[in-house]
Amino acid sequence: MTFSLTHTDTQSGARAGALHTAHGSIQTPIFMPVGTAGSVKAVHQRELEHDINAEIILGNTYHLYLRPGIELLEKAGGLHQFIGWKRPILTDSGGYQVYSLGDNRKITEEGVVFKSHIDGSSHTFTPENVMDIQRSIGADIIMAFDECTPYPCEYAYAKESMAMTHRWLTRCIHRIDTTPPKYGYEQTLFPIVQGSVYRDLREQSAEFIASQQQDGNAIGGLSVGEPHEMMYDMTSLVCGILPKDKPRYLMGVGTPENILECIALGIDMFDCVMPTRNARNGMLFTSEGIINIRNEKWKNDLSPIDPALGGYVSATYSRAYLRHLVISKEILGAQIASIHNLTFYLWLVREARTRIIDGTFSTWKNQMVKKVTQRL
Amino acid sequence: MTFSLTHTDTQSGARAGALHTAHGSIQTPIFMPVGTAGSVKAVHQRELEHDINAEIILGNTYHLYLRPGIELLEKAGGLHQFIGWKRPILTDSGGYQVYSLGDNRKITEEGVVFKSHIDGSSHTFTPENVMDIQRSIGADIIMAFDECTPYPCEYAYAKESMAMTHRWLTRCIHRIDTTPPKYGYEQTLFPIVQGSVYRDLREQSAEFIASQQQDGNAIGGLSVGEPHEMMYDMTSLVCGILPKDKPRYLMGVGTPENILECIALGIDMFDCVMPTRNARNGMLFTSEGIINIRNEKWKNDLSPIDPALGGYVSATYSRAYLRHLVISKEILGAQIASIHNLTFYLWLVREARTRIIDGTFSTWKNQMVKKVTQRL
Repeated sequence: MTFSLTHTDTQSGARAGALHTAHGSIQTPIFMPVGTAGSVKAVHQRELEHDINAEIILGNTYHLYLRPGIELLEKAGGLHQFIGWKRPILTDSGGYQVYSLGDNRKITEEGVVFKSHIDGSSHTFTPENVMDIQRSIGADIIMAFDECTPYPCEYAYAKESMAMTHRWLTRCIHRIDTTPPKYGYEQTLFPIVQGSVYRDLREQSAEFIASQQQDGNAIGGLSVGEPHEMMYDMTSLVCGILPKDKPRYLMGVGTPENILECIALGIDMFDCVMPTRNARNGMLFTSEGIINIRNEKWKNDLSPIDPALGGYVSATYSRAYLRHLVISKEILGAQIASIHNLTFYLWLVREARTRIIDGTFSTWKNQMVKKVTQRL
Repeated sequence: MTFSLTHTDTQSGARAGALHTAHGSIQTPIFMPVGTAGSVKAVHQRELEHDINAEIILGNTYHLYLRPGIELLEKAGGLHQFIGWKRPILTDSGGYQVYSLGDNRKITEEGVVFKSHIDGSSHTFTPENVMDIQRSIGADIIMAFDECTPYPCEYAYAKESMAMTHRWLTRCIHRIDTTPPKYGYEQTLFPIVQGSVYRDLREQSAEFIASQQQDGNAIGGLSVGEPHEMMYDMTSLVCGILPKDKPRYLMGVGTPENILECIALGIDMFDCVMPTRNARNGMLFTSEGIINIRNEKWKNDLSPIDPALGGYVSATYSRAYLRHLVISKEILGAQIASIHNLTFYLWLVREARTRIIDGTFSTWKNQMVKKVTQRL
């Protein structure tokens, strides 16, 4: 995997570049739709490709490991083949879900023992087997196995956890370096910066991660409940330390505003369940602001959802029709809203990229933040 | 609306023809996907058009009248415009849902007073206002307002109900004849034969309906719990009386076997919620038989769902992947299964049409009934 940084904004840390993988190139900054268990919820793969124009999607190792399971994924020739998706896939390490979904988890130096949220069965994740699992899933980008600390988190715990995440990283790198790719194409490991909301820990962690000289780096443990200003402060600090010539991925972020602000701080890659989860609740992100489609005010609005985006569903279906579907609990309502919100997120990062390239990013970003945060 | 009967099978009552409406032609025999409240559940309109190749869909007057309501549908310029569907639409009369969903319904000579299953509000359907409502929905084919008797049904009740349905039909025809189409294109009324499972009543009703000389005719009150042989017997009897040069629509039918048998009896049009409802429960209809995709036996089956159909999802997604999605309660599972089952139903009636035209229908039908009824 190679990354070429092609443009840097003069008034902010924003950058434009391209990430080249065995399954194609990704123009950065990019947003990665979350395909939890082998499906971006309510969205067909061809809609991801043709309507949303997603350039890479994310799979959750925890979910995929439990269901459909690694044996079947290997039999299928990996997740790409299993779900019919030809473009790149990034998998998380499963750590976040183990902590948030797994029951009775027990963290030791060796790894994490947890019980499945589906059937209560007992499982162990270690830095080594999580690398093996992601190899078997066939991810183009593999995430290091880390501990994602909650917010708030005591300093002492955050420090010890960070140190263990670093020791785990050494084991992850060793495992990746001593095992071949599973399906013949390159699989690239991204280490993860931790350190909670403590500046000295984040600095230490960023320096350690940078020193590993991997082909891309990630920032974890943010967007877990801390104030946005704190997230921006940590992101800014870490971006100042991580190498400029490698892609930077801010995990689990975020709102359209978060994404714009963090692009300005030097982030290249994002993922978040928000566009699809909120879609299923009737919350739409548009180029003019936020719409709660369940509100009476949209009942007779026969105008398209957001024609500015150019996407099929956003330009074709009316707000009144979508409202009717959502109110009537029709599955098609969730489908349309999900495609729309993802179309918006991908539009947003592509617009940002265009503005970075033409040198108008900072002005545009400030205007756009006002728009995307207002409720229509 | 015109109907041209182009082929008749020499060994059965099966026919092939074409129905020409303001929104395009329909090759018969045809199956109409049910778009209850302005959406064929879990299926995009463009999937109906391009993948399933549905030639006409059905809308439920009861649901559409309650939500989104006639005022909004009129503002949108009718249901076609509201949902973005350019091909023909048939609406039922709302009668069936009033009897099955409406609370505290009271049937009188004037019409039916019922309470909404959504909010308990009180409403009245009469032959006249149901014609007006269907005009406002903008249906190409409007169904007469009838009473659909349950099964079993006492002879005396069935006889009196049939007589009222006939009196209501006279009012429906008068209303249609004295009101203009709502949106400039022709809207055609189909009367409905009733009479429960009583041969003499069905004969009387079919003769009365035939005498009205409308452009198409329907058979209602079947597939409501009676044995299949009884349904076939009534259908055969009625088809012998209804005019040959008008399309015949058997309402609410049915399984693939029912459809094949009733095509053989002379039916041209069908609708049923079965392909979409069963899809959401993981039951798939295929050209080789019935699949319960939840069964363990499909867990590792990486072959396509049913490549013989030629449709996108049926040829692209594997049984193992669909099983995984259904087991994991992913919305995409309902989407794929719904598109698949409708693709199968449309494939089945198109195959039947091809066989009617080439003179091999009866032999093919007998083989196909064996296939579609077996569990794989």
